[in-house]
Amino acid sequence: MFDSVDMTKKLKKGEYSKKLEELGMELGLVQRRAREEARPVIIVFEGWIGSRRSVIINTMMQNMDARGFDVLSTTEISKVMDRPAFEYFWNNLPAWDGMRVFHRSWYYLKHYHEFKNNKDVAARYTFDHINGFEKALTDDNYIILKFFLHLSEDEQKKSMEDTNQLGNLFYEKYIKEKEDSKQDWSYKGVYKEYDEMLTKTNTANAPWHVIHADNVKFATIQVMETIVKEVNAKLDEGKIDSPEEVRGEVKYDALSKVNPSQELSKEEYKEKLEKYQKKLRKLQMEMYKRGISAVIGFEGWDAGGKGGAIRRLTSGLDPLGYQVFPVASPTVVERNYNYQWRFWVHLPKSGEISIFDRTWYGRVMVERLEGFAKANEWQRAFGEINEMEKQWADAGMVVCKFWLQIDKDEQLRRFTERQNTPEKQWKITDEDWRNREKWEAYEDAVNEMIVRTNTDYAPWTIVEGNNKYYARLKVMKTVIDLFEKRLAKK
Amino acid sequence: MFDSVDMTKKLKKGEYSKKLEELGMELGLVQRRAREEARPVIIVFEGWIGSRRSVIINTMMQNMDARGFDVLSTTEISKVMDRPAFEYFWNNLPAWDGMRVFHRSWYYLKHYHEFKNNKDVAARYTFDHINGFEKALTDDNYIILKFFLHLSEDEQKKSMEDTNQLGNLFYEKYIKEKEDSKQDWSYKGVYKEYDEMLTKTNTANAPWHVIHADNVKFATIQVMETIVKEVNAKLDEGKIDSPEEVRGEVKYDALSKVNPSQELSKEEYKEKLEKYQKKLRKLQMEMYKRGISAVIGFEGWDAGGKGGAIRRLTSGLDPLGYQVFPVASPTVVERNYNYQWRFWVHLPKSGEISIFDRTWYGRVMVERLEGFAKANEWQRAFGEINEMEKQWADAGMVVCKFWLQIDKDEQLRRFTERQNTPEKQWKITDEDWRNREKWEAYEDAVNEMIVRTNTDYAPWTIVEGNNKYYARLKVMKTVIDLFEKRLAKK
Repeated sequence: MFDSVDMTKKLKKGEYSKKLEELGMELGLVQRRAREEARPVIIVFEGWIGSRRSVIINTMMQNMDARGFDVLSTTEISKVMDRPAFEYFWNNLPAWDGMRVFHRSWYYLKHYHEFKNNKDVAARYTFDHINGFEKALTDDNYIILKFFLHLSEDEQKKSMEDTNQLGNLFYEKYIKEKEDSKQDWSYKGVYKEYDEMLTKTNTANAPWHVIHADNVKFATIQVMETIVKEVNAKLDEGKIDSPEEVRGEVKYDALSKVNPSQELSKEEYKEKLEKYQKKLRKLQMEMYKRGISAVIGFEGWDAGGKGGAIRRLTSGLDPLGYQVFPVASPTVVERNYNYQWRFWVHLPKSGEISIFDRTWYGRVMVERLEGFAKANEWQRAFGEINEMEKQWADAGMVVCKFWLQIDKDEQLRRFTERQNTPEKQWKITDEDWRNREKWEAYEDAVNEMIVRTNTDYAPWTIVEGNNKYYARLKVMKTVIDLFEKRLAKK
Repeated sequence: MFDSVDMTKKLKKGEYSKKLEELGMELGLVQRRAREEARPVIIVFEGWIGSRRSVIINTMMQNMDARGFDVLSTTEISKVMDRPAFEYFWNNLPAWDGMRVFHRSWYYLKHYHEFKNNKDVAARYTFDHINGFEKALTDDNYIILKFFLHLSEDEQKKSMEDTNQLGNLFYEKYIKEKEDSKQDWSYKGVYKEYDEMLTKTNTANAPWHVIHADNVKFATIQVMETIVKEVNAKLDEGKIDSPEEVRGEVKYDALSKVNPSQELSKEEYKEKLEKYQKKLRKLQMEMYKRGISAVIGFEGWDAGGKGGAIRRLTSGLDPLGYQVFPVASPTVVERNYNYQWRFWVHLPKSGEISIFDRTWYGRVMVERLEGFAKANEWQRAFGEINEMEKQWADAGMVVCKFWLQIDKDEQLRRFTERQNTPEKQWKITDEDWRNREKWEAYEDAVNEMIVRTNTDYAPWTIVEGNNKYYARLKVMKTVIDLFEKRLAKK
């Protein structure tokens, strides 16, 4: 993409200060407009070392009414090193009223790890993951602008010399520790990689703007003009619904083959329960020592036995190493972000286990059936969820999901029992009875969900649930097998 | 406080499961009630090593409808080690609809650093700071419950033996690395310290509940009963306004002695500006290498020159090492928390500088005068702010505040100039004119603010602002002096 940049353009004499002031005003206006129209904006700055990103960002910030507009410098490499590629950015996502500049971004992390020769980590920043992350947001009507500040080779050399004279935090923070990496940080050393990166991530929804930055003032004006123009253009278009799927008569099926009634005696249950508990504790310790994390999601019919299964699964585990997140309607904070946000912020730390009691699959079940998500939203969620889980798995996590399957009669039996036991009445609500009336619609949704999101890196396990003993043991045994399989890998 | 605990109490036979189920239901109810009444709840669990906090917390969680109720384990010591004592907890504060369990808390960090003999860090966890942190929240109608799980010496020994047989994450995470600390983790070694800690932080607004925990089941029931009882009692009381101050005829004065008109020629300005820029850059590098951070706040009359002063202050700095936060009305996320929250989450990282363009002092100026804060709220803010800044300073940060002082005529001149310059019109709003009409009321508020929050650890500097050149240099020189003074300390 570099070949297409005209590096001869210049500002006219006297044009700079006037334009700076005008554009400062317009940036303030466009920012207020985006907030009023509930469109979060993400602006990414990348570029050659020495391209004076910081100066450009700061000049821009200082000449505008920057309230509600903020800058995040992606400089804490060590903290995010071993984490899923986009966790840091999900954690720092602007809410719907925000406009956030990422001074260096996921592109920088990709390059950093490539240069450092951290092959395992670099492998998480695939172009697919990058494009997937950006698309999930732009489909949700986030506005993403990406700038690459381009320098000629001579100008880069000159710029680096200037900076080094002054004392240089970039040097302190990165170059120093990087000297052992024997990588070529020079212009020629990265030209091809940068060009490829720009080309492969130059998508229609989040295109790159390559800015000729040999002259800082010229570049600053270009950047500000582009933001004003592009954000206004997106706002003029209005919120756009991503296209709905063409959905023919296709009928998905995953549940019909399953017989929810399986036999297991109490004696066998007790004996195996104890064995599995001990085994799980042992595996937990190994996983912890190896720094391998796990995400375990539970879905199932109301009264399907999720709570009981989670209790048994965790009964032998060291509580310091796992956490259970019960998922209900979003909190006052969560509802200001894209729906994926609240799951990303609860990913397990190194060697730990996050268990979700109900999950992100609410998007394609309750949100779909109750109309909380529009058709195009729940339809594209299948792909978004696969991509999200792939990112977790690519970071080395065990990812698995359980569907607790009972039949309609068994559900009625359990509802009635709850209704008739005073201490259990709180577990049964009118909503549960209403959901029961929609059994067939839910069945269709669950079938589609399981078929379309059953991947090798994040498999579904359907658990025959009429017999609680059988169900609990199957959950434990499945987790044991997955942990053992993961530990067998390097 | 340990002496007062009756360690002979027991559950009656058969009582446990029934109570567990009843209390699980009641906990779910009390949690919903707290949310409906917009009362965030913080529940702290501390106790002897081996007191099975985790088991008790998990049993509780698993027997209730835990949606909207979550647990945070304070285990990431290394990450928060060098930070102000309460930053981690502010970062993890529940919003107004949340109920959050802190499995280990600030009390644990205090002890951890004492045992590890990290004297500098431990010194940040004074009883004053702890009580101040808790009071700021309870005064804002947060509900805080603190549990200490108390064991007899024999029971602790037994418990530790059991745990070690199973494999123990607590050991992996802490004890291992702690073996070099030569501290006595035994019962006798910490009994006195624990007792003192409980006594000195057993406040009326956030009292301790010391639970006899030799028997886990008994302790679990005690904890759950106490939560139900105490949270309901707080909710029954309703939100309580902290008392207003008795305010006599006292007239504060800080501004009257200041003559805002000071002379400085453009030539002298240019010469010194360049000198100061270079000096600041040099100091920034030293501060960065030493890991010393700074918080710099700017307040002043509208059109007082805050923006220009910040631009000059930062003009020589390496942009990677500082960030400017423009402060306006809170964002959709910020408004769900106590007013201090949005400043805590923007504290500078190690060796960096956070500059706030308007600050937490909005509480005692605009919020006071426009009625956004009630009288008792802005009145107690003086003390809260002093305490907050003290915590930052105690963590080694430079903390300073500027008030940009111009006179009323100069403001009129600047307003009129902005009004008459098309590119500057956006800088002047109807609100600015309205504020101007309240000049005298603001003057009283500013005088009180400066007098009551001018501390040795976070001093105010009043900047004579009619002459912009003079003002900008004074800001720069003041920062230079403060940085040099800080660097001269060890």
